[in-house]
Amino acid sequence: MKTILYFLLDRWADFEAAYISTAVAMLGEGKFENKTVSLSAAPVRSVGGFAAVPDYVLSDVPDDYAALILIGGMSWHGEEAAKVKPLVEKTLKSGRLLGAICDACRFLGTMGALNHCRHTANDFDELVRSAGAAYTNANGFVHRQAVCDGNVVTANGTASAEFAREVLRALLVADEKTIDCWYEFHKLGLYTAPLPGMR
Amino acid sequence: MKTILYFLLDRWADFEAAYISTAVAMLGEGKFENKTVSLSAAPVRSVGGFAAVPDYVLSDVPDDYAALILIGGMSWHGEEAAKVKPLVEKTLKSGRLLGAICDACRFLGTMGALNHCRHTANDFDELVRSAGAAYTNANGFVHRQAVCDGNVVTANGTASAEFAREVLRALLVADEKTIDCWYEFHKLGLYTAPLPGMR
Repeated sequence: MKTILYFLLDRWADFEAAYISTAVAMLGEGKFENKTVSLSAAPVRSVGGFAAVPDYVLSDVPDDYAALILIGGMSWHGEEAAKVKPLVEKTLKSGRLLGAICDACRFLGTMGALNHCRHTANDFDELVRSAGAAYTNANGFVHRQAVCDGNVVTANGTASAEFAREVLRALLVADEKTIDCWYEFHKLGLYTAPLPGMR
Repeated sequence: MKTILYFLLDRWADFEAAYISTAVAMLGEGKFENKTVSLSAAPVRSVGGFAAVPDYVLSDVPDDYAALILIGGMSWHGEEAAKVKPLVEKTLKSGRLLGAICDACRFLGTMGALNHCRHTANDFDELVRSAGAAYTNANGFVHRQAVCDGNVVTANGTASAEFAREVLRALLVADEKTIDCWYEFHKLGLYTAPLPGMR
């Protein structure tokens, strides 16, 4: 069983976690498991007010996880967020998948983690302003909903479904066609998505 | 402050709760609050594996809530789900907003709660089969992503954003234009949605 870690900080964005976690659970059943992580064991409130009890705290994250996904929200700045950097560095160095969506992309920029891969974020100018000298890869910024380059997946905050699709592909959670069907069904909706077998 | 209740059962669908709860929190800040309810005080796992601590258990739901939203998932059948019926009946009788998405619509059908309003669900045939004689309103079934009729909002499981839009409109969480902008931004995404002021 491969473990995917979802890092949640206070006021995490519900919809940025929702598609990727359910798709992994449903398409990867029996092969992948989702686990949440936070800075402490206390429930972490989402933007929508849902209180999630983390499965792990930062200090007891298992060593054999397959991917680390940073869920966007209102707290990817300051000293609390900085505590997540060692886990991000470990993930990158060991070649495991690192995913970040919305403001978590800007956070990666501030720690120099976007300097060696094509990537996206909510807003290029905001990324440059916020990361300053730590960000040296303006040429690597791509104006797309979600970008996967090597082991790094980034997406803006309106790209929950596209982010999920890229992570599912990168982890080989299912075959390409199954992933595309899942994406179209949820993105386009029951009455617009192609019928199964008609793609 | 108006309270919106979200009923969660075991294996609730993350994405069905995510758009409505965050939109209420962001567009209705200071006027609306989101509270989760479940059958017991224990954390309720979502399909994606997130463990939500409910704010209320069924027996201590506050009397002055403004709306009840039934979040779909894997447990809207059997004796456990049946315990939610009195709260649904109270909501309908008092003219407060009742929302249901995905399998929670079928649940409403089995208790006869769709017989006096236009409505939708995941699948018409499944609704008829499951609800049997309790469902007498086949003419009221609408093949659309989400339907609002009077105080009842229903939606299929691929219609999280459309469900949110109908609930936001019905509760007057914001003005129509703000709600439409929010919907298009999240549905179409950063690079496709109309620029603010260009709709």
